[in-house]
Amino acid sequence: MRSGYDISALLERFYAGQVAAAARLITILENGGDDAEKVLDGIFSRTDDAYRVGLTGPPGAGKSSLLYQITKRFRKKGRKIGIIAIDPTSPFSGGALLGDRIRMQSLSEDPDVFVRSLASRGSLGGISNCTDEVTDLLDAFGKDLILIETVGVGQSELEISEKAHTVVVVLVPESGDGIQAMKAGLMEIGDIFVMNKSDHKDAEMAAAEIANSLRLKDIPEGNWNPRVILTSARENTGIDELVDVIEEHRSYLEENGLIAAKRREILFSRVRNALMDRIEKRLGRSEMVREIMKNRMDDVYNGILTPYALVHELEKTVKIK
Amino acid sequence: MRSGYDISALLERFYAGQVAAAARLITILENGGDDAEKVLDGIFSRTDDAYRVGLTGPPGAGKSSLLYQITKRFRKKGRKIGIIAIDPTSPFSGGALLGDRIRMQSLSEDPDVFVRSLASRGSLGGISNCTDEVTDLLDAFGKDLILIETVGVGQSELEISEKAHTVVVVLVPESGDGIQAMKAGLMEIGDIFVMNKSDHKDAEMAAAEIANSLRLKDIPEGNWNPRVILTSARENTGIDELVDVIEEHRSYLEENGLIAAKRREILFSRVRNALMDRIEKRLGRSEMVREIMKNRMDDVYNGILTPYALVHELEKTVKIK
Repeated sequence: MRSGYDISALLERFYAGQVAAAARLITILENGGDDAEKVLDGIFSRTDDAYRVGLTGPPGAGKSSLLYQITKRFRKKGRKIGIIAIDPTSPFSGGALLGDRIRMQSLSEDPDVFVRSLASRGSLGGISNCTDEVTDLLDAFGKDLILIETVGVGQSELEISEKAHTVVVVLVPESGDGIQAMKAGLMEIGDIFVMNKSDHKDAEMAAAEIANSLRLKDIPEGNWNPRVILTSARENTGIDELVDVIEEHRSYLEENGLIAAKRREILFSRVRNALMDRIEKRLGRSEMVREIMKNRMDDVYNGILTPYALVHELEKTVKIK
Repeated sequence: MRSGYDISALLERFYAGQVAAAARLITILENGGDDAEKVLDGIFSRTDDAYRVGLTGPPGAGKSSLLYQITKRFRKKGRKIGIIAIDPTSPFSGGALLGDRIRMQSLSEDPDVFVRSLASRGSLGGISNCTDEVTDLLDAFGKDLILIETVGVGQSELEISEKAHTVVVVLVPESGDGIQAMKAGLMEIGDIFVMNKSDHKDAEMAAAEIANSLRLKDIPEGNWNPRVILTSARENTGIDELVDVIEEHRSYLEENGLIAAKRREILFSRVRNALMDRIEKRLGRSEMVREIMKNRMDDVYNGILTPYALVHELEKTVKIK
């Protein structure tokens, strides 16, 4: 495939630590295809298991401000940080208020912080999410902590728990009943629960409710006990505790050999997803599939053929050893 | 496959209009597999293009209350209504406040309203969403209007616009900056925008903002011009107008031959999704795929083999004509 760039040259500049090269390579990863695979094959041996923290929660819970504060703390500890925002409501993605956006962008001025927003699958018409790939790239770029911000409302929870070592669920006390209900899904995946906007009058009560429902889960002895933390990203309180508990969770995973298991899980799901993507593309290029679709979709449309009968016809074009 | 039920008998009871049989068949559809296909093949000839309206918007925007009011209006017009709630925050799904839930369930006492909530993909571990299938079933059950409630936060927008003839985006004036940002994705898919909680002091301004950004889109002459409506589900205002505009949008689609195009689109995506599901299952059962995964995942884990190199090995087990 001809392309307007030289991947080997880009990779060399990337290995030399050039931010522009990293940004360019991410765009290549986003576009997918053979070039993306070439990049991934190139960097794979340099990935070194950066630690991944996912921040998820409803829109407006203050995830981005929290991310900003956490980043500053981890920078003080000397960590090199990659930030990936998949949340369409994130200021990183250009969605939110200008003030927030400027504050966030100020992080990127630190050469040891790399910020990138990615389009979510929904908004751009089924573009496959390349979070895993971009995480690898930032890992190979020398980042040792990757923070992933994603909006959590019952659709994407599972995804973030497949990608992150530590999942931080961010909630706010003032939310309406919709949000209350939504917690059900989020309760399942959080390693740490943050009740943000702790200056709110209902914050303590809301945090106690979360802690209560966690107790009801009856977690076996020796397993990680999810923690509930009160923070105020605006007033900058509780952030130190949050950072400490993230470290604590990391130690717990390390001491129990769970980091290795998570890495296996991440690699497995990546292989599966990439395989299915490639098969779908090959089907799209298949002459026979096109022919069948062209001739038979009308029959489905006219009620002569059921959709599943057509699926069976199409399936015959696929042989699996 | 042996099963604890007789599908033909269930279908007969279903054709006779028995609600219990419909509920049972939906469970079979949710479970998927051969039995689900048998059901779909059975009912397909009876589907008759029920009109589908999607309601989407952030958690807490009042979608469920609006759905309740709309349903009552359409019932007065004699429509037979199916309601599908995929929103994990919906009272239909048992998530929200008890009062809401009771009010919603009162709808089901009307024999011409059928209510069903479906698990969203995320919350239950990748269970494939069977909205299309359940819509067909309700269609074959004699419903002529299907209302689909889904939470919209940048992940699921596109999905609902693939499934519904008319997409109603429900927003509220009081939402924080996160919600404001999220609108970006929702702006693309709405045929009708509802500013709910119109008694709120900022409602008119918020509605005007939406109308403004719609004007900026520069919609070509002759195309549908998305409408903005102020409602209060609680005070029961604006609902008549909303119902009228839904009807207006339907007429627009019908007069321009767009209903047919939408049906084709829905059938096409269903065939594609079902085909990919079946291939994924077959891959999971393939001895050779298991063998490769068993022997080679360790190499990926140990950095000897890249994930994409493994994908290429796996791909060789799949031949497409």
